[in-house]
Amino acid sequence: MKIIKVGLIGFGIVGSGVVKILSDNSDVISQRLGAKIELVKIADLDIETDRGVKVEPGVLTKDVDEVLTNPEIDIVIELIGGTEPAKTFMMKAMENGKRVVTANKALLAKHGDEVFSLAEEKGFALGFEAAVGGCIPIIRSLKESFAATQIKSIVGIVNGTANYILSQMTENGREFGVALKEAQELGFAEADPTFDVEGIDTAHKAALLTRLAYGTSVNFDEIYIQGISDITLKDIDCAREFGYKIKLLAISKMNGDSVEVRVHPAMIPEDHSLAQINGVFNAVQIYDDLMEKSALIGHGAGSLPTASAVIGDVIEIARDVLLGVSSRVPVQAFDPKSFKNLPVTDIRQIETEYFLRFNALDKPGVLSVISGILGDHSISIKSVIQQGRDEGKGVPLILMTHQAREENIQDALAKLNHTDVISEKPIVIRCES
Amino acid sequence: MKIIKVGLIGFGIVGSGVVKILSDNSDVISQRLGAKIELVKIADLDIETDRGVKVEPGVLTKDVDEVLTNPEIDIVIELIGGTEPAKTFMMKAMENGKRVVTANKALLAKHGDEVFSLAEEKGFALGFEAAVGGCIPIIRSLKESFAATQIKSIVGIVNGTANYILSQMTENGREFGVALKEAQELGFAEADPTFDVEGIDTAHKAALLTRLAYGTSVNFDEIYIQGISDITLKDIDCAREFGYKIKLLAISKMNGDSVEVRVHPAMIPEDHSLAQINGVFNAVQIYDDLMEKSALIGHGAGSLPTASAVIGDVIEIARDVLLGVSSRVPVQAFDPKSFKNLPVTDIRQIETEYFLRFNALDKPGVLSVISGILGDHSISIKSVIQQGRDEGKGVPLILMTHQAREENIQDALAKLNHTDVISEKPIVIRCES
Repeated sequence: MKIIKVGLIGFGIVGSGVVKILSDNSDVISQRLGAKIELVKIADLDIETDRGVKVEPGVLTKDVDEVLTNPEIDIVIELIGGTEPAKTFMMKAMENGKRVVTANKALLAKHGDEVFSLAEEKGFALGFEAAVGGCIPIIRSLKESFAATQIKSIVGIVNGTANYILSQMTENGREFGVALKEAQELGFAEADPTFDVEGIDTAHKAALLTRLAYGTSVNFDEIYIQGISDITLKDIDCAREFGYKIKLLAISKMNGDSVEVRVHPAMIPEDHSLAQINGVFNAVQIYDDLMEKSALIGHGAGSLPTASAVIGDVIEIARDVLLGVSSRVPVQAFDPKSFKNLPVTDIRQIETEYFLRFNALDKPGVLSVISGILGDHSISIKSVIQQGRDEGKGVPLILMTHQAREENIQDALAKLNHTDVISEKPIVIRCES
Repeated sequence: MKIIKVGLIGFGIVGSGVVKILSDNSDVISQRLGAKIELVKIADLDIETDRGVKVEPGVLTKDVDEVLTNPEIDIVIELIGGTEPAKTFMMKAMENGKRVVTANKALLAKHGDEVFSLAEEKGFALGFEAAVGGCIPIIRSLKESFAATQIKSIVGIVNGTANYILSQMTENGREFGVALKEAQELGFAEADPTFDVEGIDTAHKAALLTRLAYGTSVNFDEIYIQGISDITLKDIDCAREFGYKIKLLAISKMNGDSVEVRVHPAMIPEDHSLAQINGVFNAVQIYDDLMEKSALIGHGAGSLPTASAVIGDVIEIARDVLLGVSSRVPVQAFDPKSFKNLPVTDIRQIETEYFLRFNALDKPGVLSVISGILGDHSISIKSVIQQGRDEGKGVPLILMTHQAREENIQDALAKLNHTDVISEKPIVIRCES
């Protein structure tokens, strides 16, 4: 039986999952591939710590070049994450004729043009299924299964940490800080949770989905990103009162001359299928011209789910190696000659529904002032709830709008901030239905 | 730009969808493939009827050999369905060096060994993504994305007609016959709905999923198949009372020395994710050793969704043609040398939970007799509801059991039928939680 030799850079959570699966499931992998996958080198700065998986002597090394320049190795798995030195390593691996598999969404989202171009130039596949939605087969589906369709939009819950926190807030009434601490204790959140809770990780994934769905590069810095750290139990309760849940969404829409890519907490109706995705589960919904709506759901993180996607890519690329062919499918789903360079739609130009919470003064005429200013900005109101009543003091006034333009909302709120009818900066949460 | 020439056999609902997509979406397809797909021949016995799609003169023919033996044609799409003459055509196409794409689940489920063997012998890919779950990318996911995993079980709703009827019964209180007639009027059910409502179509798909998930052939005649035509509103209401919904499920489990493959209506908890799949939507859930649970959801039928999966396969195989390679991935997910021939688990040997509805005589001691006989057969009861009360006459007595063995249930019911405490044959519905 033929042997495909693989090198691994990064022996962390996902890396040790890769080692475990290649050992535990070697039979089923060989039965599917018709060849054996052998992990010949693992490079990591820490070669002492026991990861709970068996590694043959001589496999572990501190010298990354034992992977990158190893003539035996066909496929390099990069799992150190972050932009550097991951990018240097990945580029060097490709320059040395290695095919690469990675879970590094940050690198591909921020430096995709450079990394993907080199893979295209070399004619190699570059596997990154594990970069979005863990084991959810969204990358392969966009590149192959949905290749006949014109994708219109993608909406996803693609960060398990944020979804776990929001689920705990919604279901068990935990405050954000408490739920975050709990997630950290359970290993669902990192010591520095910024990327997860501030939406940055979700935006990395949104950028990658956008590239593959519409065949366009995405300037990461143009993406509107808002995290969940400002979401309070009050917001969750208000959402519930309107029959909504709050989820951190990655939203990507083809708008013709631009692509709308935005990440923010959003209110979605309780009977929306994404509202059923709780805890660390992820889900990606695809809307297109032929299938209407499809959804893929699964574990979005964790050692084994993510590693299973990594090895799925390794197996796919091993088939190329066995056949002696270059990449079959364009690295970014579209032929490089057709690849576009569309701008991201300015957030002020998007249109959606809005949930607005004002701390209004409880005196006659307040609603008339607020609704008047909203009306002047072409914003029409779907429903209003005024909670409690305490004349002369602030009371929460909650409005849901019909479809409105973001710039009109922002302009109207700026104007309202200059009136004397509201006492605090209003809370704004976008709605997706 | 290179051109891949395709022939189509069967110009029906899905066939005309294929023609429409190849025309409407030719740009996006070429951008993804880097080549053009040209439909050069369509064979159908009816070349007169207008299908609402444009066909160039000379493309339509009544002579199937103009497709099967056409030296120009690289890929043949078979969409006539049924076992014959589809099988003869498909085998002839492969014998003539064509690669084949089909949506024909009946043929592959019943004659898979023969058809797949020829494809393996020829070294060609055989695309059948559209055979299971319409546009849901379950075939490609099982063959590629989940290639590192040991799949344990698959549970799916894979027949849109049956799911539409059950949804109408559940949500709108329609009787089975009324819902079926409505489905026929809306084009969701065929004039002869036997395959859909009697579970046969679902079983075809269960057989294919089983082959790919575990790498074993499946003797279709060994599959336990029960349809939904006996389900009444009474059953639906009882299910609701226990917090359950009734769905027609395809169930496939790896039991080691045998594979459990069964199709029947089942009660599932209302908060089970499959309970949210309504109308013509399909869903497939995969349980394995690494990802725990994944789910793929989408339109399970219809012209364009199914045709989109057909063309996804055509594009994949066109890449093989362009690279001049044989099949990359084993036709049935596993290397033919590793392919097994496991028997299907006898239905009497399965274990699950059961919902039992008796028409019991309302006299003291009846429950004691029934629970005694169940207990004698190692069946323990989870809950009991006795509805209404009319001493001396029959009243419905409903039991939910804990996990029990089917043969014990059947034996216990046979014994109960010989007592004088029940007045009709009991209703038995299996539960999946």
